[in-house]
Amino acid sequence: MADFAGRDLLSTLDWSPGELRALVDRALAIKAGREAPALAGKVGALLFFNPSVRTRVSCESALARFGGQGITIHPGSDTWNFESVDGAVMDGATQEHVRELAPVLSRLCHVVGIRKSELITVGSAAAPATGSYAELKRDPFLHAFRRFAEVPVINLESNAFHPMQGLADMATLVEKLGDPRGVKYVLTWAWHPKALPAATPHSQLLAACDLGMEVVSLRPEGWGLDPEVIAAGRARAEALGGSLVETDDVEGAYRGARIVCAKAWGGLGFYGRFEAETLAKGALRPRWIVDEEKMARTDDGLFLHCLPVRRNVVVSDGVLDSNRSAVIDEAENRLWTAAAVFAALLGA
Amino acid sequence: MADFAGRDLLSTLDWSPGELRALVDRALAIKAGREAPALAGKVGALLFFNPSVRTRVSCESALARFGGQGITIHPGSDTWNFESVDGAVMDGATQEHVRELAPVLSRLCHVVGIRKSELITVGSAAAPATGSYAELKRDPFLHAFRRFAEVPVINLESNAFHPMQGLADMATLVEKLGDPRGVKYVLTWAWHPKALPAATPHSQLLAACDLGMEVVSLRPEGWGLDPEVIAAGRARAEALGGSLVETDDVEGAYRGARIVCAKAWGGLGFYGRFEAETLAKGALRPRWIVDEEKMARTDDGLFLHCLPVRRNVVVSDGVLDSNRSAVIDEAENRLWTAAAVFAALLGA
Amino acid sequence: MADFAGRDLLSTLDWSPGELRALVDRALAIKAGREAPALAGKVGALLFFNPSVRTRVSCESALARFGGQGITIHPGSDTWNFESVDGAVMDGATQEHVRELAPVLSRLCHVVGIRKSELITVGSAAAPATGSYAELKRDPFLHAFRRFAEVPVINLESNAFHPMQGLADMATLVEKLGDPRGVKYVLTWAWHPKALPAATPHSQLLAACDLGMEVVSLRPEGWGLDPEVIAAGRARAEALGGSLVETDDVEGAYRGARIVCAKAWGGLGFYGRFEAETLAKGALRPRWIVDEEKMARTDDGLFLHCLPVRRNVVVSDGVLDSNRSAVIDEAENRLWTAAAVFAALLGA
Repeated sequence: MADFAGRDLLSTLDWSPGELRALVDRALAIKAGREAPALAGKVGALLFFNPSVRTRVSCESALARFGGQGITIHPGSDTWNFESVDGAVMDGATQEHVRELAPVLSRLCHVVGIRKSELITVGSAAAPATGSYAELKRDPFLHAFRRFAEVPVINLESNAFHPMQGLADMATLVEKLGDPRGVKYVLTWAWHPKALPAATPHSQLLAACDLGMEVVSLRPEGWGLDPEVIAAGRARAEALGGSLVETDDVEGAYRGARIVCAKAWGGLGFYGRFEAETLAKGALRPRWIVDEEKMARTDDGLFLHCLPVRRNVVVSDGVLDSNRSAVIDEAENRLWTAAAVFAALLGA
Repeated sequence: MADFAGRDLLSTLDWSPGELRALVDRALAIKAGREAPALAGKVGALLFFNPSVRTRVSCESALARFGGQGITIHPGSDTWNFESVDGAVMDGATQEHVRELAPVLSRLCHVVGIRKSELITVGSAAAPATGSYAELKRDPFLHAFRRFAEVPVINLESNAFHPMQGLADMATLVEKLGDPRGVKYVLTWAWHPKALPAATPHSQLLAACDLGMEVVSLRPEGWGLDPEVIAAGRARAEALGGSLVETDDVEGAYRGARIVCAKAWGGLGFYGRFEAETLAKGALRPRWIVDEEKMARTDDGLFLHCLPVRRNVVVSDGVLDSNRSAVIDEAENRLWTAAAVFAALLGA
Repeated sequence: MADFAGRDLLSTLDWSPGELRALVDRALAIKAGREAPALAGKVGALLFFNPSVRTRVSCESALARFGGQGITIHPGSDTWNFESVDGAVMDGATQEHVRELAPVLSRLCHVVGIRKSELITVGSAAAPATGSYAELKRDPFLHAFRRFAEVPVINLESNAFHPMQGLADMATLVEKLGDPRGVKYVLTWAWHPKALPAATPHSQLLAACDLGMEVVSLRPEGWGLDPEVIAAGRARAEALGGSLVETDDVEGAYRGARIVCAKAWGGLGFYGRFEAETLAKGALRPRWIVDEEKMARTDDGLFLHCLPVRRNVVVSDGVLDSNRSAVIDEAENRLWTAAAVFAALLGA
């Protein structure tokens, strides 16, 4: 494998499709037991500003299996609040600047993972919008941290991207399809009581693009993914002989698909207007659930979802409990891709 | 030792007395340094829905000493809420079904431990009863999790049982008594400001039964342990030449006892009626504390308690600080029995 | 190195300057890779009653790098409350006595670290004083725990001392100065919106004294450090040919200093009177910040701070971002001194 030691992983867009594929191949080699990365004594600081099960456990377990250790920190409950604005006069609520936090954690640990999504709570009436979407999608904390860090930084889900999920999806697509080039892949929006952030579908869509698939972004009008991400994904897909189209034609999208990946997210145009979105999307609920009838239109399609998933809301029990569901294998690949990422960035 | 790889430990009732004794003997061998289980790289997910000191630290330490690692998760604070009802339409508070959680944690970790006791908080006026006792004693979450898990599941205290405490008590009885068969053992109820669940005394009582002791369940009328557990324990004790009797005769019970194990629990008949129980048990407080006077009636008896214990409420300082108290040794055995359980279930 | 196995580290005052220097030299040897302590399978329980980043991560990382593991416990959130008063009738809020907690954790783990500072929250209007300062500075919980513990106990910051920070500062002073004897060192008070406890500046001041430096305690009248600590530090400094003076002469103190260490703390005389202190110290803010103008008076002085630091409140961006700031190196030394302490106390 090429030498990725010292690289960061903030978005898969910062890596070439070939580099990502090298990571995925290494993950599958570790999964198959053909390789055991030398992580003994390696320590990763894992900052979770938002809750987590799969991401935390997959990262900690990947380190632990090979002799390393993760130190999970829940800022705000275990600690104080952090500042990331340059020149701030810190006489208010923040007690430590990222200009100290980043180099200090770099000295204490070999790698730092960060989950910080301000958008994640915008789904509740109680959580008002903080900052504009245009500003938050630049992930100011994450990028400020990286700027001052002295070790590799891994994005464990930000406002814009979730590259660790993207890599796990790539590994799953390679595993299930062999050669995914030219295969039809649908990422479908689903109704959900909250307005979830689009970081995960962004990275999932890019995973399919980076494998040169025929990618369909299926969503109602008004719920399109970020146009910058769509444009970047299309360019990467086309360079590999694939394609990316956006549509709201549910029947057409499912027809012939080999992969259906479902995800709920809040509409960009509704950002900060939770009640308006809830009202607008109410009628979409029955039409956008993934169920057996829709899956029957596919070409023996496999079902993917990043999990956690709301059963009988996003997808029916019938699909999830069938042998067409690959969600458990997909979640397992979080472990092996995490191991490959730690090994690659640490040169281990 | 027989091959226990892949077994679950939800209740000691699922294991034969001989199998339990094999676990205990292995624990004492590990304690004596005659054996070091091969847990390197083994990862255990430890879900604590309720607070813990001994259980969490003993499990994490048992793994860590032999090269493994525990990942402690506090659902609700670190994560979201979980669903365990089949067919649920998950558009409410729960965000992940045990049908996903259990297989996913199974793929990420080698073993899963779960502490979930809805009954544990019923002791406060602020915590109303959720579900009926008859329903909760079936431990629906734990059993649903086990049903969908792909790796061994360990009960770290449920509504009904606390088998890890039971094993530690068995190890302590073997250590202190050599051959416990036919030796008089008293499990005494104690007054406590809360209505604690009976999971721990159930498993403690069964530990003595599974060693063929002369077991006395000492408690006021109205505070009897679950009749199903009493019946099961009696059958197991008698099969080994021992016995199990229930009584409220404090003087008679202590007389000649070699072991006095104290524990507070809420009366089954009072379940969900905290104020009524508080009123009813008020007068019992002075009579049911374990003190020097009562211990003087024993046959040089040893004092056991699972800890944490409320001093001068459940037991007097005089007893706890005397050389007749074995509570610290008992707590230490949590570590060695946990190591034996992990090793056995993982085939390590 | 002398054999420190089994020792406690509650305050650097319990150790001789020569012993502390041996710890520091070992820390620097570990940092240089000349030594790797044998911590495989060693487990440390780390009780944090107060939030932490550096202390927790440095301790966990020090153990993890060399094969051990830290188990971080947040009493109150992960657990119940603890009692430390002898003879208490525990029918109230506390559920476990330190007489059980300390020996039990000793049986489960090889070493125990404790952070418990009741004074830490006195800075907020919402947190009334609990107990008198004279009583709290004796650190009753920490000393009760040590009394009943069976393994080494490390103070991770109490009301009175923060010896782990003191050792990291000693290591930094040795690293930066070579031979610190007779070198001018200033510990300056700084304005801060809260009334922080003096544990850290106490141990930082003692670090300089224990290296035989010319130590200046610079603070406004009314904000002197604890007279007992001042007296002890002076005696130790003088025995090594150094000195300790207290002053409020800002210009004089900075002149010729080679080291300026800044820290905010609440005035002892104001203890429990937060509003009065806030009012009294308001005018001090501009004069007591560490800025480029003040640093220019030093002899090419280095800036130290324990972190976290409030930028442009305690110290200006200009100082922190200059090459005269050693705060990141100082924080890194938390790791290596923690490794040396664990190794020494565990005889590893």
